[in-house]
Amino acid sequence: MPGNTFGRMFTVTTFGESHGLALGCVVDGCPPGMALSEDDIQADLERRRPGKSRHTTQRREPDKVKILSGVFEGLTTGTPIGLLIENTDQRSHDYGDIKDKFRPGHADYTYHQKYGIRDYRGGGRSSARETTMRVAAGAIARKYLAERLGVRIQGYLAQLGPIQLAAENLDIVDENPFFCADAGKLAELEAYMDELRAAGDSIGAKISILAQGAPVGLGEPVFDKLEADLAHGLMSINAVKGVELGAGFAAVSQKGSQHRDEISPDGFKKNDAGGTLGGISSGQDILASIALKPTSSISVAGQTVDKKGQASEIVTKGRHDPCVGLRATPIAEAMVALVLMDHYLRHRAQNADVVAGTPIIPASIR
Amino acid sequence: MPGNTFGRMFTVTTFGESHGLALGCVVDGCPPGMALSEDDIQADLERRRPGKSRHTTQRREPDKVKILSGVFEGLTTGTPIGLLIENTDQRSHDYGDIKDKFRPGHADYTYHQKYGIRDYRGGGRSSARETTMRVAAGAIARKYLAERLGVRIQGYLAQLGPIQLAAENLDIVDENPFFCADAGKLAELEAYMDELRAAGDSIGAKISILAQGAPVGLGEPVFDKLEADLAHGLMSINAVKGVELGAGFAAVSQKGSQHRDEISPDGFKKNDAGGTLGGISSGQDILASIALKPTSSISVAGQTVDKKGQASEIVTKGRHDPCVGLRATPIAEAMVALVLMDHYLRHRAQNADVVAGTPIIPASIR
Amino acid sequence: MPGNTFGRMFTVTTFGESHGLALGCVVDGCPPGMALSEDDIQADLERRRPGKSRHTTQRREPDKVKILSGVFEGLTTGTPIGLLIENTDQRSHDYGDIKDKFRPGHADYTYHQKYGIRDYRGGGRSSARETTMRVAAGAIARKYLAERLGVRIQGYLAQLGPIQLAAENLDIVDENPFFCADAGKLAELEAYMDELRAAGDSIGAKISILAQGAPVGLGEPVFDKLEADLAHGLMSINAVKGVELGAGFAAVSQKGSQHRDEISPDGFKKNDAGGTLGGISSGQDILASIALKPTSSISVAGQTVDKKGQASEIVTKGRHDPCVGLRATPIAEAMVALVLMDHYLRHRAQNADVVAGTPIIPASIR
Amino acid sequence: MPGNTFGRMFTVTTFGESHGLALGCVVDGCPPGMALSEDDIQADLERRRPGKSRHTTQRREPDKVKILSGVFEGLTTGTPIGLLIENTDQRSHDYGDIKDKFRPGHADYTYHQKYGIRDYRGGGRSSARETTMRVAAGAIARKYLAERLGVRIQGYLAQLGPIQLAAENLDIVDENPFFCADAGKLAELEAYMDELRAAGDSIGAKISILAQGAPVGLGEPVFDKLEADLAHGLMSINAVKGVELGAGFAAVSQKGSQHRDEISPDGFKKNDAGGTLGGISSGQDILASIALKPTSSISVAGQTVDKKGQASEIVTKGRHDPCVGLRATPIAEAMVALVLMDHYLRHRAQNADVVAGTPIIPASIR
Repeated sequence: MPGNTFGRMFTVTTFGESHGLALGCVVDGCPPGMALSEDDIQADLERRRPGKSRHTTQRREPDKVKILSGVFEGLTTGTPIGLLIENTDQRSHDYGDIKDKFRPGHADYTYHQKYGIRDYRGGGRSSARETTMRVAAGAIARKYLAERLGVRIQGYLAQLGPIQLAAENLDIVDENPFFCADAGKLAELEAYMDELRAAGDSIGAKISILAQGAPVGLGEPVFDKLEADLAHGLMSINAVKGVELGAGFAAVSQKGSQHRDEISPDGFKKNDAGGTLGGISSGQDILASIALKPTSSISVAGQTVDKKGQASEIVTKGRHDPCVGLRATPIAEAMVALVLMDHYLRHRAQNADVVAGTPIIPASIR
Repeated sequence: MPGNTFGRMFTVTTFGESHGLALGCVVDGCPPGMALSEDDIQADLERRRPGKSRHTTQRREPDKVKILSGVFEGLTTGTPIGLLIENTDQRSHDYGDIKDKFRPGHADYTYHQKYGIRDYRGGGRSSARETTMRVAAGAIARKYLAERLGVRIQGYLAQLGPIQLAAENLDIVDENPFFCADAGKLAELEAYMDELRAAGDSIGAKISILAQGAPVGLGEPVFDKLEADLAHGLMSINAVKGVELGAGFAAVSQKGSQHRDEISPDGFKKNDAGGTLGGISSGQDILASIALKPTSSISVAGQTVDKKGQASEIVTKGRHDPCVGLRATPIAEAMVALVLMDHYLRHRAQNADVVAGTPIIPASIR
Repeated sequence: MPGNTFGRMFTVTTFGESHGLALGCVVDGCPPGMALSEDDIQADLERRRPGKSRHTTQRREPDKVKILSGVFEGLTTGTPIGLLIENTDQRSHDYGDIKDKFRPGHADYTYHQKYGIRDYRGGGRSSARETTMRVAAGAIARKYLAERLGVRIQGYLAQLGPIQLAAENLDIVDENPFFCADAGKLAELEAYMDELRAAGDSIGAKISILAQGAPVGLGEPVFDKLEADLAHGLMSINAVKGVELGAGFAAVSQKGSQHRDEISPDGFKKNDAGGTLGGISSGQDILASIALKPTSSISVAGQTVDKKGQASEIVTKGRHDPCVGLRATPIAEAMVALVLMDHYLRHRAQNADVVAGTPIIPASIR
Repeated sequence: MPGNTFGRMFTVTTFGESHGLALGCVVDGCPPGMALSEDDIQADLERRRPGKSRHTTQRREPDKVKILSGVFEGLTTGTPIGLLIENTDQRSHDYGDIKDKFRPGHADYTYHQKYGIRDYRGGGRSSARETTMRVAAGAIARKYLAERLGVRIQGYLAQLGPIQLAAENLDIVDENPFFCADAGKLAELEAYMDELRAAGDSIGAKISILAQGAPVGLGEPVFDKLEADLAHGLMSINAVKGVELGAGFAAVSQKGSQHRDEISPDGFKKNDAGGTLGGISSGQDILASIALKPTSSISVAGQTVDKKGQASEIVTKGRHDPCVGLRATPIAEAMVALVLMDHYLRHRAQNADVVAGTPIIPASIR
């Protein structure tokens, strides 16, 4: 199957280019009977929307989503849910430079070489604008997970360039432009970003996503381990260069006596595993982190070649995010929601006969 | 689809438990007409096989592979290739403790909770012994990739606990028990491992995998980006807690002017991207790294609970790898081979009409 | 995966209800570089459109298709093609009866029981209106097949109730309201349909689909044989109750010496096989036939029960096709096109290395 | 995905050639906790096994199945079940003629052309011997369906050449060599088959499969309708040329007032639909029929060409079934079992939230 579908039992198929007529997706496999409105989805889209502070791109994208099918009298019907966002900010641009030159760090060259043709307007299909549909579809999954299973999924900025940030207070994440949970560092972040913007440069970021309340049993050994599908989903987000679960790369220098999470009758004693054992959720918090590269769309000139292989120089004009990592938080949350939802449906397909009862190991200590 | 199949056009479906009758797999989609013998596969299995030095488990597993189908008169026929390895080291064990207690850091608890039943002998399906079949299937993929496309895939130990290792000389990787490319550090590794083994503890590791010669154009935006499928495949290996591509988590503190790989008529000037742009291979070297946790099977006693939730203590007996990362190198290479092979077939399905010709950007500078 | 996606390498995912806002689909995997306009698709939609003669439903559905993505400067780009048809004939209806009673022969009861909720307006998702998107997606596949491989796909009415029809002249199929290739029977068909409409009843039909020029080699043994995927696609069309390939059910009373198609240096001597051998296309004409039941939406009253299981009677009001088989011809052609296209891409993924050359058995004698 | 896997949530992947070392399969997705032994599977294999009467091929194939994984202490564990049958009747043959000539009605030519190479020994992968694994996997599905849901699946011979047979008494099907439910016709069948065998010819057959007790709600609109997946599975069996559901092709000459199954508080009044409405099982009996062509392996000489395209004549030697339809009954039952099992798991994945309760329409009247 081509690459624009995600999931097996709860599937999302997206389409649309940055500067085309519309972005859309089909969500197939949503259980019937769940209340769903456009407002439910719009709320998550707003969190991703650019232009809300001076630290993100100043493009205006109203991003109003329409539900075209699959909902009747306010409830999901079990049939595919069609979603659509029409592109409105399509003023005529001068693409001359981008059309014939390959921007370093962008998909221009690889799309050209793979397909022999590319929609160069705003990056076409390779634009991060595609992720609006991930957020929209993810909103449906997270609503189901929250209402039926009590799952809460919350992302936050863990590092921005050199600035490391604590997961101190998740309640403030949506109240600042950085999805930052570390109140004491907000001023430092503001200053850093202002300086960066003035220099016309960009910066990388690390985002962590915490999923609390996921039931035991999600994940299908051996290839579709929960962490493998999380890695797939998260690594498929534009600009992501790394994915960790739990201790992640810190586990490289841990000893076995240190890393393994011992268990008591009150629950796991700690959570270096990040919420899975053997590819299956353990009932602990699921904690994933991702590394996002700095956007390559900067106003610092760069060396490249054109379609004829001739040396050239390019400066990316336009309104770009100096840190793509900032707006990645709701996108990453959406991917985690999609993976958990898909695996919940897969799990109950095979294992509905297993009497669940109360998990042997309580979730109280995480 | 359940979780024991990997790939879309070049698929591998595995089965088998650690202490069952046999391990096996079906490789479907292999192009016809390639010379293939059991020796071709056995060679890769030997690299993974335990017991070759004092630094890995002393279990003896001859791991002789049989080709049951799909090859006729020495050539692949395009029909599914069945592979089988019979388990020989099945002496009767005393599993009393493992049967009723959940080993910390192992899949015991999650399998029990998900399925309501588990084959506790040697970890059953969750044992890393399952990865023999990944190596066997991967051997077929890498033979095709090498012979038809000139792709070379080589993994090496990048870090063991606190010891960082350079990718100095890939030619020595198969000549030492650590898959180490840094000749000057071999003595230090020996000493560290000896001390660790004496302490009955284990250690984490970082492995890097380099794929050279992969053609431009592999990877299917948007969800099945090449890096996303690499992350999926690599994160599905037992004990892996993190995956990086190119600069990986180092990109978090890079600026855009620093991270983006500029281009000249002679090729890319560097390779922080790790070989992909926008989810599609660029013709540069593909470089992935993985973090492996220390094995939880150590002789240091650990706290846990039994199937009734009662507090208990457990010591893992038996012959275990003090660093599972060591033998992970050929497994990780196999997963990279499977992903590249699958994407090569997917790419030519859709894009065979595109006149390939010489890539605009030469691969000479990597 | 849920059921609204068809194909593996050339996939179609549809959404939309009969009386919802819109119908749409995503076509993923289309090779890049093919000229494609809305007119190309509209032409096939016109052939399916109701209201063109007195023998089909008099509903007016302009069915104007919009291409939302995947096409740039008139050429496909290799990215997913989003298609949309807005529903315009949505005048407010009185659905009182259908809402609470299960129409015999319709999906009312099974949707209610499966999902616990159903969009009863015009049959919702179970309406044959869903097939517009099959025709739209099929138009893309058949354009590629025609232009690149010279494949011609043509359906025709083979039987309507008791009237059997010859495949005499395929050129007149699109010039009469019955998709009939048997000029001498047109008057009889007209009279039969007029009488049927007066009686408020409906009638079954048999449609045949001929695909000429398909290359040798399409079809994937063993489960995805070409005939198996054709059967899958054709049986998924609303109201289809049977599928045949070649001699079909007539083979039941054939002897082996009679059925097998002998071969000469000039080609196959006849075509009882219907164009496949062992699940793979042979280069002969592919001939499939389908049986369509009479529509259950008739003005003759029928016995049923309501949602409480109470006995009741129901008469289907509204404008319905007295023979759904008539408009099924372009739909069946579309499904055949989708199957051939998908298998063509799958075939070249695995077997591009096989030097095709001239097939040993010429296609001249069919 | 290549073509050797069937199903989405309960998947079967098969491998093996007629005269290779072994046939095998992997059954993935089987719910855990079901008692399963080799005897359970062997019983179904015996029903398919040749050589039990003079009316089938006299090849001796013991076909002893081994369970290699997925079962522990007599219960399924939820991990993949590996099955293996070693080929024993591999005496050295003289394949000279078959090697270079294409047998009419066989897959020789299409395999040669598709793959450029073929295992000509006994038909290789295209041999009906492959279906042993369908029967073996189907035995697991039907055991689950019978024990957990009370589903009974029974096939029978509906027509052999010109002899039509009633579904009079399903209890005698396994007591005669024809899978015939019409006691009064047994003598006629014996005589017909004896005459046919003497003539060295073969004959077609029609098989019907009845599934009783399947729950309401199986089937995924729109492409994966239950009847569509049944058609896929049944048409993928060697030699099948047609598939019907319920009235099938007889619906072509039915009127709507005649075909639709009216409903009363006591149940459906008849079953022309064959057990599905809108692609979803209705709780009525599911009735499918298939047409099987006469085997092309007959001792009557036939015209063909060789690999160089030169005219030639061929006589198939060896021990072949004069009516492949006879042994198709257990194979067709197996495919129906696999489809129902797969759809049962898919249904409960999406719709477990829907309170099932007692179906509104009782199943008592079928």
